[in-house]
Amino acid sequence: MSESVRLIEVKENVLDDNEKVASALRARLKEEKTFLVNLMASPGAGKTSTVIATCNRLKEHLKVGVLEADIDSMVDAEKVAKEGIEAVQMRTGGFCHLDATMVDEGLSAIGAEGFDLIVLENVGNLVCPAEFDTGASINAMILSVPEGDDKPLKYPLMFSVCDVVLINKVDALSFFDFDRARFEEGLRRVNPHCQVFEISCQTGEGVDAWSQWLKEKVAEHNR
Amino acid sequence: MSESVRLIEVKENVLDDNEKVASALRARLKEEKTFLVNLMASPGAGKTSTVIATCNRLKEHLKVGVLEADIDSMVDAEKVAKEGIEAVQMRTGGFCHLDATMVDEGLSAIGAEGFDLIVLENVGNLVCPAEFDTGASINAMILSVPEGDDKPLKYPLMFSVCDVVLINKVDALSFFDFDRARFEEGLRRVNPHCQVFEISCQTGEGVDAWSQWLKEKVAEHNR
Repeated sequence: MSESVRLIEVKENVLDDNEKVASALRARLKEEKTFLVNLMASPGAGKTSTVIATCNRLKEHLKVGVLEADIDSMVDAEKVAKEGIEAVQMRTGGFCHLDATMVDEGLSAIGAEGFDLIVLENVGNLVCPAEFDTGASINAMILSVPEGDDKPLKYPLMFSVCDVVLINKVDALSFFDFDRARFEEGLRRVNPHCQVFEISCQTGEGVDAWSQWLKEKVAEHNR
Repeated sequence: MSESVRLIEVKENVLDDNEKVASALRARLKEEKTFLVNLMASPGAGKTSTVIATCNRLKEHLKVGVLEADIDSMVDAEKVAKEGIEAVQMRTGGFCHLDATMVDEGLSAIGAEGFDLIVLENVGNLVCPAEFDTGASINAMILSVPEGDDKPLKYPLMFSVCDVVLINKVDALSFFDFDRARFEEGLRRVNPHCQVFEISCQTGEGVDAWSQWLKEKVAEHNR
């Protein structure tokens, strides 16, 4: 285990209403001028690579920290910490999503009030995390090209709760049958207004545009 | 909606013990000589393509049917039905996994006792489906190459409950950083004995070997 990564075990809140906890958390983060991004995706869509690419672009301008949720391993937080980005690993012990209480525990562990931006990497799952408000300032999700363009039809709740969708692995577009127009059509049925960026964490394509957009959101929030 | 596809809404069983329902279902399927494969994977790993490629290879020899679980859409069952394979779409209405009662409803809808082999495509999710015994004769899962070789470390329960793992999209191995030895090491930590096949539903590579293995399992079960 790397010395630079703290591991905390997080437990589901079964007593309080998650919506209330989430709203209170969001209000507190606004007051403390800390912007929290809840990043969701399937397993293997490139969440950790996106976290690293984004934080590396923003860390000159903002104090950035990362909360990594995982069912069991420390792999992701260690990868992030190797880049010199402060990270806490939240272990859910088999749990399939994060609720606002778990996120609050993670924020306490990292000392969130000292940060401009915290990126929260949720559990790899397109179903359950969409049902729970984490208290984040915005919801972001990654769809990777190999997953296919039909995903908004099949996981409508996830696509409907997002403020921004990142289409990752666009360097692999020539390799897979992913139709951008078909994706757009499916997405707009469930979410007419969210922002979309095409990125590749492999080549760096599009990461500047997305990071710039995020930086502006952070500035608006923390003003 | 295609005329050849029936849609049923399935509901979670909150009253009975799922393990008991699953055991009873497995015993009944054995008696009726119907082999049930529970196929699990992340969104976009290639479940439906694998179902089609497999059934197309086996339908000359076996009477094959498909149960497609999805949160909301009919897309998958319609794709399967277009290939002339009998399919029922089970809509979970937002639910993140299948339990044995839902599967029993699907089996009744397709008339399972007339089939040698039923392939059940579970909800796209590497977390929750692993926790629920569906009553299937075997558990199979697909990991696709773009998802990465570290998945057994991150979704250990899923990899531990499988009798067979299909590594799909091996035609994309040159494009992604997927280390077969690293995957094997992670897999064997949680599951020393499961079978592994490398396949590509795009090129057909490896599908014959996997289908032949499945055919032998069906023959043993239905003897």
